[in-house]
Amino acid sequence: MVAPDGSLLDLGGHTGEVDGAFLGRLASIDADCLAPFHGDATRFGAPFTRPGKVVGIGLNYRDHAAEARVPLPTEPVVFLKASTSVCGPTDDIQLLPQSVTTDYEVELGVILGAPLKDERDPGRALAAVAGYVLAHDVSDRALQLERGGTWTKGKSADTFCPVGPWLVTPDELGDPADVRLRLSVNDAPRQDGWTGDMLFSVPELLCYVSGLMTLEPGDLVITGTPAGVAMGQPEPKPYLRHGDLVCVDGGVLGRHRNRVVDAVRSATPAAAS
Amino acid sequence: MVAPDGSLLDLGGHTGEVDGAFLGRLASIDADCLAPFHGDATRFGAPFTRPGKVVGIGLNYRDHAAEARVPLPTEPVVFLKASTSVCGPTDDIQLLPQSVTTDYEVELGVILGAPLKDERDPGRALAAVAGYVLAHDVSDRALQLERGGTWTKGKSADTFCPVGPWLVTPDELGDPADVRLRLSVNDAPRQDGWTGDMLFSVPELLCYVSGLMTLEPGDLVITGTPAGVAMGQPEPKPYLRHGDLVCVDGGVLGRHRNRVVDAVRSATPAAAS
Repeated sequence: MVAPDGSLLDLGGHTGEVDGAFLGRLASIDADCLAPFHGDATRFGAPFTRPGKVVGIGLNYRDHAAEARVPLPTEPVVFLKASTSVCGPTDDIQLLPQSVTTDYEVELGVILGAPLKDERDPGRALAAVAGYVLAHDVSDRALQLERGGTWTKGKSADTFCPVGPWLVTPDELGDPADVRLRLSVNDAPRQDGWTGDMLFSVPELLCYVSGLMTLEPGDLVITGTPAGVAMGQPEPKPYLRHGDLVCVDGGVLGRHRNRVVDAVRSATPAAAS
Repeated sequence: MVAPDGSLLDLGGHTGEVDGAFLGRLASIDADCLAPFHGDATRFGAPFTRPGKVVGIGLNYRDHAAEARVPLPTEPVVFLKASTSVCGPTDDIQLLPQSVTTDYEVELGVILGAPLKDERDPGRALAAVAGYVLAHDVSDRALQLERGGTWTKGKSADTFCPVGPWLVTPDELGDPADVRLRLSVNDAPRQDGWTGDMLFSVPELLCYVSGLMTLEPGDLVITGTPAGVAMGQPEPKPYLRHGDLVCVDGGVLGRHRNRVVDAVRSATPAAAS
């Protein structure tokens, strides 16, 4: 846990894992009573255990729908990313073999701390949020759109969902509709959006998704990306390539800094993990 | 565990959960050394813990693609179902509110016992299978196809993935391309297919999906449904309604018997689970 002064505090006395059960009682943790963290903090991983599911929302910013050349959705566009796609905020983004259309999407992520099922009250939906996280919905456009499947195909690769560096509680974030989201590639600004421009707000999205499937503590909902993705640029579109450095900034949500690398030709491991 | 004579054996000495870690060493369990099970066996749940992901394959039988009036896919159609959709073989299937287009799809399910990443050898892919399971890919067609999202929307509701009653190991099943799959609604036969008619075989599907995302022990891949779904029938299409009894038969894979019930108007629980 990160203290207001930037120092690290130890949650080890409260939980072994930042999982759904812990997230449900996160609000009861008093940071003033935590001891300093003295372990190895050379790498930040995802600030929670692997989510039970990662729910994605498509085309949730007017300017992004325009650059994608599709009509504005009349209800939220929902997809799932494989939970194995989640990685940390400084991990490498590994391209799929032969990929030349991998795109970036900075997003606001929402982590549930309580279950939501068929919820219709926005206030109760917001009360189920354990915290917010800066998220990156890496997407291979050819696989997403041109290869005879659903979006899932292009959005589920390992490392295609960097999150972190920390989980920001609702009281620390303030209004989830007032977050600036920025992304650059090799220091060139590419996205600069504001969550107040979402077509469907965080509580509206949570209510909507909870009517399709039960959201559980630890589930992650990523809420769509503003304009500026590579797909929306003139040719030659600046898709991600080996060696690119992607920097993502969410203000109080923190920053990512991910190197893009070519697929490692990885045979299946010999033994089960 | 079910013995060849139908009696129940106790896995409690080997594992608390039939999870990915246990599935990786399932082949090492000697059924002759298990004690009889003496617990409460009045309900069979899913024969494994909730999968890390449920990967679905669409349009994988020629006759089903024809009834859906879509071209034959040239590569597998991949989607994800929320893992919260998994339920047991005799649990109620709960319709979503106002749903009038909920359809049935009997399928062969594959449970991984070892990780698969970017695998290209069909033999090694098959060697990663812990077992097979009779699966039911319940699908709300309006949400799947007409509501501005991906298929996920209509395939992820709670109870939309009955599985079981047991996990059949590869040596017990024999050839996964020689399984008869049948489904009836209120005793009227609706589907009668054969896994040998799949466009893409089980090992081909596992290789393909493993090139998109890492498959892990405990993950479930459902492999598509043969013809006979309600969507493919003349009007009025016989979609599932409150009170219907769906029976699914997979031969050695066992049977399901699920009652269809209207959505229960369920407010979000007051406290986290």
